[in-house]
Amino acid sequence: MPIYNAPVTDMQFILHEVLNVSGSEVPGYDELEPDFTSAVLEEAGKLARDVLAPLNRVGDTQGCRLENGVVRTPEGFAEAFAQLKDGGWTALDCDPEYGGQGLPYIMQTAVGEIFVSANMAFNMYQGLTHGAYSAIHTHGTEEQKRTWLPKMVTCDWTGTMNLTEPHAGTDLGMMRTKAEPQEDGSYLITGEKIFISAGDHDLAENIVHLVLAKAPGGGEGTKGVSLFIVPKYLVNEDGSLGDRNHVSVGKIEHKMGIHGNATCVLNYDGAKGWLLGELHKGMRAMFTMMNEARLGVGLQGYAVAETAYQNAVAYARDRLQGRSLSGQGTTAGAADPLIVHPDIRRNLMDQKSFVEGARALTFWGAQLIDRSVRLGDAEAEGLISLLTPVIKGFQTDKGLESAVAAQQVWGGHGYVEENGMSQFVRDARIAMIYEGANGIQALDLVGRKLAADGGKPAMAFFHMIRAFLKENEEDARLKGFLEPLKQASKDTQKAALFFAEKGIKNPDEALAGSYDFMTMMGHLCLGYMWARMAKAALAALDAGRGDRDALEAKIATGRYYMARHLPATALHLARIETGAEPVMGLPAEAF
Amino acid sequence: MPIYNAPVTDMQFILHEVLNVSGSEVPGYDELEPDFTSAVLEEAGKLARDVLAPLNRVGDTQGCRLENGVVRTPEGFAEAFAQLKDGGWTALDCDPEYGGQGLPYIMQTAVGEIFVSANMAFNMYQGLTHGAYSAIHTHGTEEQKRTWLPKMVTCDWTGTMNLTEPHAGTDLGMMRTKAEPQEDGSYLITGEKIFISAGDHDLAENIVHLVLAKAPGGGEGTKGVSLFIVPKYLVNEDGSLGDRNHVSVGKIEHKMGIHGNATCVLNYDGAKGWLLGELHKGMRAMFTMMNEARLGVGLQGYAVAETAYQNAVAYARDRLQGRSLSGQGTTAGAADPLIVHPDIRRNLMDQKSFVEGARALTFWGAQLIDRSVRLGDAEAEGLISLLTPVIKGFQTDKGLESAVAAQQVWGGHGYVEENGMSQFVRDARIAMIYEGANGIQALDLVGRKLAADGGKPAMAFFHMIRAFLKENEEDARLKGFLEPLKQASKDTQKAALFFAEKGIKNPDEALAGSYDFMTMMGHLCLGYMWARMAKAALAALDAGRGDRDALEAKIATGRYYMARHLPATALHLARIETGAEPVMGLPAEAF
Repeated sequence: MPIYNAPVTDMQFILHEVLNVSGSEVPGYDELEPDFTSAVLEEAGKLARDVLAPLNRVGDTQGCRLENGVVRTPEGFAEAFAQLKDGGWTALDCDPEYGGQGLPYIMQTAVGEIFVSANMAFNMYQGLTHGAYSAIHTHGTEEQKRTWLPKMVTCDWTGTMNLTEPHAGTDLGMMRTKAEPQEDGSYLITGEKIFISAGDHDLAENIVHLVLAKAPGGGEGTKGVSLFIVPKYLVNEDGSLGDRNHVSVGKIEHKMGIHGNATCVLNYDGAKGWLLGELHKGMRAMFTMMNEARLGVGLQGYAVAETAYQNAVAYARDRLQGRSLSGQGTTAGAADPLIVHPDIRRNLMDQKSFVEGARALTFWGAQLIDRSVRLGDAEAEGLISLLTPVIKGFQTDKGLESAVAAQQVWGGHGYVEENGMSQFVRDARIAMIYEGANGIQALDLVGRKLAADGGKPAMAFFHMIRAFLKENEEDARLKGFLEPLKQASKDTQKAALFFAEKGIKNPDEALAGSYDFMTMMGHLCLGYMWARMAKAALAALDAGRGDRDALEAKIATGRYYMARHLPATALHLARIETGAEPVMGLPAEAF
Repeated sequence: MPIYNAPVTDMQFILHEVLNVSGSEVPGYDELEPDFTSAVLEEAGKLARDVLAPLNRVGDTQGCRLENGVVRTPEGFAEAFAQLKDGGWTALDCDPEYGGQGLPYIMQTAVGEIFVSANMAFNMYQGLTHGAYSAIHTHGTEEQKRTWLPKMVTCDWTGTMNLTEPHAGTDLGMMRTKAEPQEDGSYLITGEKIFISAGDHDLAENIVHLVLAKAPGGGEGTKGVSLFIVPKYLVNEDGSLGDRNHVSVGKIEHKMGIHGNATCVLNYDGAKGWLLGELHKGMRAMFTMMNEARLGVGLQGYAVAETAYQNAVAYARDRLQGRSLSGQGTTAGAADPLIVHPDIRRNLMDQKSFVEGARALTFWGAQLIDRSVRLGDAEAEGLISLLTPVIKGFQTDKGLESAVAAQQVWGGHGYVEENGMSQFVRDARIAMIYEGANGIQALDLVGRKLAADGGKPAMAFFHMIRAFLKENEEDARLKGFLEPLKQASKDTQKAALFFAEKGIKNPDEALAGSYDFMTMMGHLCLGYMWARMAKAALAALDAGRGDRDALEAKIATGRYYMARHLPATALHLARIETGAEPVMGLPAEAF
């Protein structure tokens, strides 16, 4: 069975040496002393290792079943969910007003990584609840918050997002689900929603569906869309559960992965719902959930890769096969462990340098959100808005690649389901698709975020890197980091300039390079994080703080990323600069 | 249900315009007139479309079952196998002496692609038989050939390869299976073999296992290994089947994909076997099968990608979602088809340019084999030996990427099993692993093939490209092809030189870059094939031969590959030139 151990040392390094959370001005960060965060992460790690990880393959093997209209989760999920709730893990960063613990989002992120690594499908039940919680918390009326949030904070009630319809995925403007206003101020919702993760299950008393639908009087397309709260069970005045609402499960999908999470077709047949936020401005409210969800999916990308990596390392140490040609690490046995072989090492370094870089980027992203929400820092808000599609798109692309690489270390044994490596690949695959397929992330980045607010966030991002380079130019020990970072930053700015110049005349000139741009931004972000990590590791070494070996390994891993991965930006720039012609040159009939 | 249509037009273009098969001096190629090859391919395409492709998902869904020691294949497989046999498809390039049709290997390859595209798991039953046929044909005694080959040519008896043991995958020297010589000249084989594809099934009367085992008196490691013919049923003097041999199925693996093919644990418990080839030189005989198998696996890489691509295109044309920002292809409906969107187009061009390039490379490789076998052309033999690990490694890596890209076009619908896109990805995944994991292919390329025969094949390869560049330097219409090809060739030679210089002192300097080298060689090969295809397409256009639109599409697709993919060689060179330090710098304990 696959192993999983929470990478608490690395998380602590990022939180305290790189991001210096407890020394930050962000309200609530003063609580995040090293001893406190370590205790929380260790505790989450135990639950992950002892309860959630052992259920990962159970979930994959058994999947969810639809029985008489009710979804049954795999054996052990209900007990584990109870432990999650009892431990208060669902309430970490929720508003104390509604029973939450009020911790910063960065702690939710670190703990979230641990749970996702251990069992991605399982963690989605609470992950989606958190997204729905946020939407209601941001856009709900006082009464709505009092009605729904306390039970969602504890996950006694879970949440879902209902966007997609059979003919309307990305293009939400085409949706057909209707909301008819009633005299009591409620609406009756009718329509079919598909791909609803955690859409039904036996883990909670009630499920709070947030549903996009069209109410009369709205415009065409997405303008006419509003967001509604539609519970599985209606709630009485006293808070007790009332009648079953008119929403039913049409079927559950048989998917490539995340079998432990029920992906439902939900049929709304005049179900009672209440408007959340403003009428005809549902997209705005939905984006609150979606941005959070996109970061969460970007986290899934590297979190699954982390577990896959741990299991690849374990196998590479254990499996004896072939001899080291250079004699390094040669053992007395019949053969050396796989880990002596340079190409296995290359493979493991690819995984390790990606996962640790992505972790740093994701934690930094969470810090930006905390700055934005808790400090009202507009620059932080602009930055995270710019980086969200990068974190989602790049990290899930590379997350799959990384999981595939981990599976490869296991050879034929990795293709056999019982060893669990296949599941990591199959689970990781969805993250490139849901919450906006990665092509949509690239479109969002190039078509919207790059030019948002007059290009201010993008300029701030590049400026931040230039400032870092300037600030550290004298530090010879960072040489292997600064040069590649400088070059990657130049390449990326050049690409942005190309879009600005050519895209005005013909948007296809920019869109044809959007995916490459997302990828090069991802490399640049990871390169920037690696340079910051190297600097922090050197500072800790100088000060005699932390584990010397771990800090040196951190620097060596960063050197690998800078030397072997950052130069990819030149390739992406070259591709982008070929423009739209090679991409669009072929007539559609010629495919 | 997924569609599949054999790409006969493209195959004909490669066979006749690019490789000019019927004008070749290779014995047997004179038969390969366009009308003949077209008739064969069309016929194969019908069987593939009407019989094999519809069984692909059946195979995936039902899988194989082990019942009372016997493997049952999915519903319909037996009938389809009978049709395959009745049509003579199993005998195409086999020796007429034993009932084969004696066609060149290149025809076997083209037909093989069609069958693999339609149903990879199904086609493995005959594919492995062909490998075993070749080993017996090359290394068997006259009597062995008369005993085994006629029934294997018809697939009345199928074949398998038995290499792997639980503790010995790549490192065959550690194998424990023993062969005890008997007085009658036979051997008794005892041991456990795993991952035996088509190891048991209900499609044939008998199964001829080729088994690697250690006979007394051999040296340590692979030196002591011999190859044995071990049938499931013993064969009587008169050719009728006798007793069941002592080989049994321990279990069948539950795998990520290729469910329609039974992957068996085979237990040999004093099973009767006969030496094939020389004693203690079994590795040599096994390599006959393995090289053929590796090309076959390289073919699987792009053949599965071809079907996935066809289904991605169909969906991209059909699915209405969003509006073209540039107005290109805008329709009157509520939304435009996906195919108008530049990033979808980029995705499809990636797939198309890979698949068509890989097809050309694979067909050319088959031509080299025909030249080697039928003409005794030593340069061709050297070249295909050099290119085999590239075709296997590069094409299966990119084949998975391409299938993932095709699945991505389908969005969430691609993640749902019933649409079949997931199966393509899961099936394609194995090709990177079996017949030598791709890291082993890279090792074979850099550690063995590059320096083989004093480096002659490698020099011949680079010389061939230089000659092509020289020969066409005046042709302005090839400009977009020659420059990138020249640069990629330079990069690749520079990498080879780096290995030659640094690898002597420390093999890790070469091995750390082996995977990058395999990848850059793959790009160079595809670039070379695209340049040859562009030249051939221009010649056909000039001569007024063929379909104008298809020829122009060919050139545009080539331009895309040259502009967007060939520049990757610079990145791989940069990675290689960082040497062993970044890869091996971290101590093994630090992972």
